Amino acid sequence: MTAETDTTEIRAVLDAVRKGHRDKDAAAIGAQYAEDAVIFDLSPPLAHVLDVSGIAAWLDTWEGPVDLQVNDLTIEISGDLAFCHGLSKTSATTKPDGQRAQWWQRLTVCLRRTDGGWKIVHEHTSVPFYMDGSYRAAVDLEP
Amino acid sequence: MTAETDTTEIRAVLDAVRKGHRDKDAAAIGAQYAEDAVIFDLSPPLAHVLDVSGIAAWLDTWEGPVDLQVNDLTIEISGDLAFCHGLSKTSATTKPDGQRAQWWQRLTVCLRRTDGGWKIVHEHTSVPFYMDGSYRAAVDLEP
Repeated sequence: MTAETDTTEIRAVLDAVRKGHRDKDAAAIGAQYAEDAVIFDLSPPLAHVLDVSGIAAWLDTWEGPVDLQVNDLTIEISGDLAFCHGLSKTSATTKPDGQRAQWWQRLTVCLRRTDGGWKIVHEHTSVPFYMDGSYRAAVDLEP
Repeated sequence: MTAETDTTEIRAVLDAVRKGHRDKDAAAIGAQYAEDAVIFDLSPPLAHVLDVSGIAAWLDTWEGPVDLQVNDLTIEISGDLAFCHGLSKTSATTKPDGQRAQWWQRLTVCLRRTDGGWKIVHEHTSVPFYMDGSYRAAVDLEP
């Protein structure tokens, strides 16, 4: 397996997550994760396990597709492990009031090669927060 | 190089970061990072570069040592890459009012083996935020 093939396969995993958001297909998103993945998400608690019905419920809070765009993606691969990081913009329409929402977040994805191909074993998404005493999540930053 | 040796060396990198916080030695912390490390920190902007004087200034906002404790640390290594994730508690005393502050955060650290040993090439620390409309950073969560 060449590094180039691995990079292509890992990009396909990330693309499947993106397509799953656009199609609102939680099962297709969940299929990209290892069963024991450790997920640090935007929302509490500190750590999540893979929860496909939770993903479906979250997707359903939006009207129409949820669009993800990833900038400055770095992929590093060695043997059976890989990690990626980049900045990701989520764009979607609120339900029921039809407002356009979008925010940039930081994305770190760690993958392991398994018998079923590359799977996400750890994901960390976040926004920073303002250190001005407000403790307000910085959902208004741009790269 | 055995996997056991690598694990020991990577733990030593993380321990050096912890000791650097306790000793308030920003240079010792900075020495654990690659020069081109991409850092997603608690505070804006979305991404930081390594900034030793910035670390020193932040350490100086606290009275006495800054204590870090890491729980549930997972380390995965393959060849010349490794990634770690866990939950980290920071404890310190505010200056000048002498209040004890502590919070749990999520920690993801990605490392690469270099001629100078294992170095942190990517770090992502964060807290989630409350999805109750307050957008308040969840600095009061516990594992």
